[in-house]
Amino acid sequence: MMTSSEYRVERDTFGELQVPSNVYWGAQTQRSLQNFKIGGIRERMPPALIKSFGTLKKAAAKVNMSYGILDKQIGDAIIQAADEVISGKLDDHFPLVIWQTGSGTQTHMNVNEVLSNRAIEILGGEMGSKTPVHPNDHVNMGQSSNDSFPTAMHIAAVVEITEQLVPALTELRDAIQFKSKEFKDIIKIGRTHLQDATPLTLGQEFSGYVQQLTYGIERVQGTIPRLSRLAQGGTAVGTGLNSREGFDVKIAETVSEITSVKFETAPNKFEALAANDAVVECSGALNTIAVSLMKIANDIRYLGSGPRCGLGELSLPENEPGSSIMPGKVNPTQCEAITMVCAQVMGNATTISVAGSYGQFELNVFKPVMISNLLQSITLIADASRSFKDNCVVGIVANREKIKQIMNESLMLVTGYDKAAACAKKAHKEGTTLKEAAISLGALTEEQFNEWVRPEEMVSPKK
Amino acid sequence: MMTSSEYRVERDTFGELQVPSNVYWGAQTQRSLQNFKIGGIRERMPPALIKSFGTLKKAAAKVNMSYGILDKQIGDAIIQAADEVISGKLDDHFPLVIWQTGSGTQTHMNVNEVLSNRAIEILGGEMGSKTPVHPNDHVNMGQSSNDSFPTAMHIAAVVEITEQLVPALTELRDAIQFKSKEFKDIIKIGRTHLQDATPLTLGQEFSGYVQQLTYGIERVQGTIPRLSRLAQGGTAVGTGLNSREGFDVKIAETVSEITSVKFETAPNKFEALAANDAVVECSGALNTIAVSLMKIANDIRYLGSGPRCGLGELSLPENEPGSSIMPGKVNPTQCEAITMVCAQVMGNATTISVAGSYGQFELNVFKPVMISNLLQSITLIADASRSFKDNCVVGIVANREKIKQIMNESLMLVTGYDKAAACAKKAHKEGTTLKEAAISLGALTEEQFNEWVRPEEMVSPKK
Amino acid sequence: MMTSSEYRVERDTFGELQVPSNVYWGAQTQRSLQNFKIGGIRERMPPALIKSFGTLKKAAAKVNMSYGILDKQIGDAIIQAADEVISGKLDDHFPLVIWQTGSGTQTHMNVNEVLSNRAIEILGGEMGSKTPVHPNDHVNMGQSSNDSFPTAMHIAAVVEITEQLVPALTELRDAIQFKSKEFKDIIKIGRTHLQDATPLTLGQEFSGYVQQLTYGIERVQGTIPRLSRLAQGGTAVGTGLNSREGFDVKIAETVSEITSVKFETAPNKFEALAANDAVVECSGALNTIAVSLMKIANDIRYLGSGPRCGLGELSLPENEPGSSIMPGKVNPTQCEAITMVCAQVMGNATTISVAGSYGQFELNVFKPVMISNLLQSITLIADASRSFKDNCVVGIVANREKIKQIMNESLMLVTGYDKAAACAKKAHKEGTTLKEAAISLGALTEEQFNEWVRPEEMVSPKK
Amino acid sequence: MMTSSEYRVERDTFGELQVPSNVYWGAQTQRSLQNFKIGGIRERMPPALIKSFGTLKKAAAKVNMSYGILDKQIGDAIIQAADEVISGKLDDHFPLVIWQTGSGTQTHMNVNEVLSNRAIEILGGEMGSKTPVHPNDHVNMGQSSNDSFPTAMHIAAVVEITEQLVPALTELRDAIQFKSKEFKDIIKIGRTHLQDATPLTLGQEFSGYVQQLTYGIERVQGTIPRLSRLAQGGTAVGTGLNSREGFDVKIAETVSEITSVKFETAPNKFEALAANDAVVECSGALNTIAVSLMKIANDIRYLGSGPRCGLGELSLPENEPGSSIMPGKVNPTQCEAITMVCAQVMGNATTISVAGSYGQFELNVFKPVMISNLLQSITLIADASRSFKDNCVVGIVANREKIKQIMNESLMLVTGYDKAAACAKKAHKEGTTLKEAAISLGALTEEQFNEWVRPEEMVSPKK
Repeated sequence: MMTSSEYRVERDTFGELQVPSNVYWGAQTQRSLQNFKIGGIRERMPPALIKSFGTLKKAAAKVNMSYGILDKQIGDAIIQAADEVISGKLDDHFPLVIWQTGSGTQTHMNVNEVLSNRAIEILGGEMGSKTPVHPNDHVNMGQSSNDSFPTAMHIAAVVEITEQLVPALTELRDAIQFKSKEFKDIIKIGRTHLQDATPLTLGQEFSGYVQQLTYGIERVQGTIPRLSRLAQGGTAVGTGLNSREGFDVKIAETVSEITSVKFETAPNKFEALAANDAVVECSGALNTIAVSLMKIANDIRYLGSGPRCGLGELSLPENEPGSSIMPGKVNPTQCEAITMVCAQVMGNATTISVAGSYGQFELNVFKPVMISNLLQSITLIADASRSFKDNCVVGIVANREKIKQIMNESLMLVTGYDKAAACAKKAHKEGTTLKEAAISLGALTEEQFNEWVRPEEMVSPKK
Repeated sequence: MMTSSEYRVERDTFGELQVPSNVYWGAQTQRSLQNFKIGGIRERMPPALIKSFGTLKKAAAKVNMSYGILDKQIGDAIIQAADEVISGKLDDHFPLVIWQTGSGTQTHMNVNEVLSNRAIEILGGEMGSKTPVHPNDHVNMGQSSNDSFPTAMHIAAVVEITEQLVPALTELRDAIQFKSKEFKDIIKIGRTHLQDATPLTLGQEFSGYVQQLTYGIERVQGTIPRLSRLAQGGTAVGTGLNSREGFDVKIAETVSEITSVKFETAPNKFEALAANDAVVECSGALNTIAVSLMKIANDIRYLGSGPRCGLGELSLPENEPGSSIMPGKVNPTQCEAITMVCAQVMGNATTISVAGSYGQFELNVFKPVMISNLLQSITLIADASRSFKDNCVVGIVANREKIKQIMNESLMLVTGYDKAAACAKKAHKEGTTLKEAAISLGALTEEQFNEWVRPEEMVSPKK
Repeated sequence: MMTSSEYRVERDTFGELQVPSNVYWGAQTQRSLQNFKIGGIRERMPPALIKSFGTLKKAAAKVNMSYGILDKQIGDAIIQAADEVISGKLDDHFPLVIWQTGSGTQTHMNVNEVLSNRAIEILGGEMGSKTPVHPNDHVNMGQSSNDSFPTAMHIAAVVEITEQLVPALTELRDAIQFKSKEFKDIIKIGRTHLQDATPLTLGQEFSGYVQQLTYGIERVQGTIPRLSRLAQGGTAVGTGLNSREGFDVKIAETVSEITSVKFETAPNKFEALAANDAVVECSGALNTIAVSLMKIANDIRYLGSGPRCGLGELSLPENEPGSSIMPGKVNPTQCEAITMVCAQVMGNATTISVAGSYGQFELNVFKPVMISNLLQSITLIADASRSFKDNCVVGIVANREKIKQIMNESLMLVTGYDKAAACAKKAHKEGTTLKEAAISLGALTEEQFNEWVRPEEMVSPKK
Repeated sequence: MMTSSEYRVERDTFGELQVPSNVYWGAQTQRSLQNFKIGGIRERMPPALIKSFGTLKKAAAKVNMSYGILDKQIGDAIIQAADEVISGKLDDHFPLVIWQTGSGTQTHMNVNEVLSNRAIEILGGEMGSKTPVHPNDHVNMGQSSNDSFPTAMHIAAVVEITEQLVPALTELRDAIQFKSKEFKDIIKIGRTHLQDATPLTLGQEFSGYVQQLTYGIERVQGTIPRLSRLAQGGTAVGTGLNSREGFDVKIAETVSEITSVKFETAPNKFEALAANDAVVECSGALNTIAVSLMKIANDIRYLGSGPRCGLGELSLPENEPGSSIMPGKVNPTQCEAITMVCAQVMGNATTISVAGSYGQFELNVFKPVMISNLLQSITLIADASRSFKDNCVVGIVANREKIKQIMNESLMLVTGYDKAAACAKKAHKEGTTLKEAAISLGALTEEQFNEWVRPEEMVSPKK
């Protein structure tokens, strides 16, 4: 199909393959492309994982150079190529899909091939020649797919959590906290069982969301102690055969330096290869955050329902045309986007759990599906939290008049008073307000009612 | 521990065990009790499964008698004992928990032991002696745990669906349909994105629920073609070794006669032992029904929210004291019960899927957890549907005045009219009704407005 | 940012926006791009959905032309543009992500905008001018997002199932059936509880997989009766307001003609908008297929485990280099890819169920996440089934010698014979074969053993 | 139905009800029994929750007595009754099912009624009279269902985790660690992708399981910081209306004293009522433990597969008759039980997540289904871990000869040696051992082979 100028020949132990001239990948990548036609371009390995492989390979080159077993010129070229991978500029050279070998070996080889070919190019060699930079002997020195892939998984997850998810959740939490303070004096009806209950302030209501998010941040951070432990050094089955003693610790240190995020070597490499429980655990935390966000976004859209026929306590910002014929109909589209994200994250947790349960002997071979789901969940929560904050939360307006009107129509303002039940019953029966009922019953004068029935005194315990 | 009058000695190939004198079970049941102390009495095998084993063993005795290989006196005693199992009066003699061997062999042996001991008792023999009725040689003649247990699973599921679930769903559907007709002339505001939309009738809204349930019944019935196929005759690995040719067909026929429900023999016994996909499929249908019921019950409780500060379009029956101090606060407890059931059924679907995926070679050994979850889902949906119907749906009252008032406050009644947007915009801005805005704009007189703005003409396509 | 030649100005009711000159989309698409920065290019709406929108818009143009309410020239241009959407050549013009409004309105408007601008171009007009082809007045004539989006969902799902999934599953089933016949005379040990059991043929074992897939095809086809029903005609809330009576039926007919797949109009449009239960149901069927495939692929990789230290009954084709230093180590990578797909499909079922449960009043606003997960599941199962068939199943070789050797070492060949237990016990204790034990016990001569112990007679019921 | 001596009359605000004479519950319990006929006796609220309510009510009595607002005689009687609830002797008096109001109010009233009636009895009063001990005024003093129920949930979960789950997991972990040490010198073949890989020790393999369980214990303990925070003091909507300032702190202190487990008051009561995220989080940890146990138990049963036709590296203890005709066939029933438990726990996580996502405004009304699933997961993991340890792990025997034989047949012992590939290739082709191939190729003498090919040097990094 391709003319000779359009391809070069690459080789693996199976033989020769034609690879497009303008790509850095080699034979094993090309073979995987041919053997795994599943899902196409939408299903490629996530860029954050590729980036973390760049970090890992850079670290390995540094450590191997420090041992004096990797030539400096070669090592430097690998590092330069790895930096390009980290920067994302070589993303197009990682065409493989998630649905490949369950160890991720093919993507790992894709990384080794791209790095060696790009390093060869840097050093003026011929791509595909494997000299002077060999994908296995140099780029992969002291490593195995079985320890490298889970290492890259953990690096990617921890870095994305640290750099994307936690900041985004913190921003959202802070924005809601700002609203909570803004709304601290707005007294409103409480609702339990969807039924009218005793009042609280809108600020208190929002403070519950703040607490949910504060906990959510704690939850995902609570998984870092195990997620930041790296498998590297376990090589093929966890024994570290063919690796140097201490290689594992040095890799963790070097990755920490490169990323400015703290990593350490896994205390037991057998667990680190055979199980991916830390991914399952982290997914459980993300799932909990999704559950929290579902609640928050649902509340906000119900409180903003209307404009005339809903609860109408909040007005959400109008970001796009809703109904051209219907002024005031502001669809809570940001709530819709983030709640859809929550559903996705909840399902991803099932995928990850099923995959995590299927480890066999020395290796779990569901690694690509686990990390792609985890990274998708991290990215979606982070992005959706920012979008929700920017395009919804900061623009929420409390409809103070409506809130007050609703509350004054309620019959819940008198709990604990003696004649309260009679007043409420009369008001309920006759469709009047409590105040009207109380005055009509002669229970209270209007002045007394106003003095005694004070919702603002109902929003905290007795002093 | 037990004095000699309190126990008898039973034997299996492992040796002797003391079994309480007043129970029919034998050595293998007793041994399972000792080896699987997991969850206790709350976690026993579901009675519907035990009952279906009674049916199966009765059928096997009949078929074996028809072959002339089972003595009539023995066969009749087994049948009498099996009828007692079917009736439920021996339920206390099935103490084993779900968390046992994954083939269900121990419960299967529990059945064989109870039937043989009870048949021995009927025939005047000594319990535990295995004569004249042997649990294996007679009760289990021509059968194996590996084909009997999945057979009992399918019988239980199909019978419970047929006798409990479909009638309960039908009753609920019919009750909602009755309401849909009762409400057919009540025009109300529609809500999309939780925002005011064009009107529909309350009857139309309820007709959507009717359709969901009609489909739900179709969905679960659509799984019967595969669920009603029985594994019996496959014996240990699906080959039917040691069974008679035709035994499988006769068992299916006889079970059909006993239960008055149509069963047939599985066309491939290897699949019927090694996979329990029909249970997974059925669970998917139950999950879909749960999703439907969640939607329905949520709508109803939101429409019934109030009494003053919610939507208030419906009044739900008050079945128990809500708030003593709050007249009119009727908690939608039936909605709450059924939505909790839905969450359980949705989770059970995950359990069943995970378990179903783990079949190995000639046998799936997650059978007890699969059938216990399926039967729980069936029972809970059936019972909750009846409870929801009896204690909620039939007593729903439409608050016609409130519905009308809400709708008239809306700005949605004019879509398609030319000057509509201007009127709606003015009304929205000034907080007035559409009519007021229209008149004030001079767009229409009151008479014209009443004549032209007719919500009742907005609830169907143009004729 | 953009120079004036690089963009044009598009307008919606919110105002003006700059849109790149070289794209067909308009203001509402551009606004969504700005407001929903969630997940980026990997998270775009699935092409199959866009394609089905092309089909739907083509059908709507035809129907509206048949009514005489859409100008022929305009209608023909829309049809031509729609055909281009169907062909996929305009895919780059649909940049919106799944995580947008839950009704899918923005993608629906993206479709309307692209079709109108492309039709304008065809007719020589100015893009962005909305003349002579208006995205709402012409492309969207008689339609609403609330009925169009679920209609496109159903079209996409049914077409993909019909054209991709069922053929792929059928091919896989047939390939396994071919193997089942090829292996019909190979007698092997059975395994239950992972323990040696009575023998069966390898063909029988594979026939179980065939049955699972046959049922799987039935299962997904069993959801078509409800999935092929289209919401179109319900307009905004299900009433069909502003649509013509009969429009719904004509749309279903025309879509059927265009796709050569049978569709009909939904009998109840309220259900069709407010619930997406048919998607949940279909997802349950896909989940069941995933469960089946997980079992099949797991069996095959365990049977192929080795080359020396596993079961080694099968040899799987070697498609890529495994271990360079390890001849015969063929990693079951196709099994790994498809089992990862299964985990994804199982999690997608959770996502879809959660999303489906959250419908509110007249609209479920989790539509994009539901359809994107469903289409992903369909595509992944279809593609993975083909890959598994092509690169694994057709190349499976039975290791006849090894299978025979394993079987002959087993102690399971004598069930039902009287002295069998003694022979087996001796063989087990002394680590010999059954035959050796039998001869040594004097139970049988070698000739007798060979004559009487015949595994080939153990693979079916007694005749 | 009941004769007058068999019942007494109890009253609530709805009227009178007949309650059996021999039970302590009152009108509201009886009413719930009649209104929620869902699932029956199998579906009752878990005893651990009832017990934690006993603890809570005892604490509340103490605190209220310390304030001087609860009469000492009444308080002491309540405490005595609460101690009986804690002891479990009143379990039969809590007949309500999970499927009731989603706030758990009915079970909470059941507790109040039982305690008041039992306290009345202690004080010589008349049951049902509500004097001298009133269920609301005295037993429920300062409390609301909305804060009491989630408080009891958290107490139950933390106590069960602390007293049951963590000790059971620790025992299992320690038992596996003991085996890991016992097996530290047994060198065996490693398996990745189910294919032969480089060797490791059986002790190393088991050390991976130890690490999984050590992490599992950390994971569930990591949820305690949030799970040990109590909602009490929030009263109806989180404001603490009608409670005393400081009541919340005192309750947490007193519960800590009674249980000897550390609790503290929730920093935000709105979150504590409206969300049950801590339960979701904890369920995520349990799910991760289930995933770990699934892997461990699967490995063990595959390693124990046989006796002749499987891997046969381990012998599992024989606890019950397997096949009467098949010596050595030991079904891994304990593995089967615990893996079924894992599937249940994984599904319960879905149930809990769905339920947790559905909080509305000031209250999540899926509390009973959440806590019942959480407690079931805790109990099942704890019990199954103990059963697995006692009846399987401690009795595992390594089949040293078989392990050695398998390893020596492998071709994986020579990685890193130059001529290794040639030897392995020859051995693979000819079906010989590596040693035979090496000698036959003249690569090594037997002495050299024995000296140089040393698996024991392949189980760690280079020193």
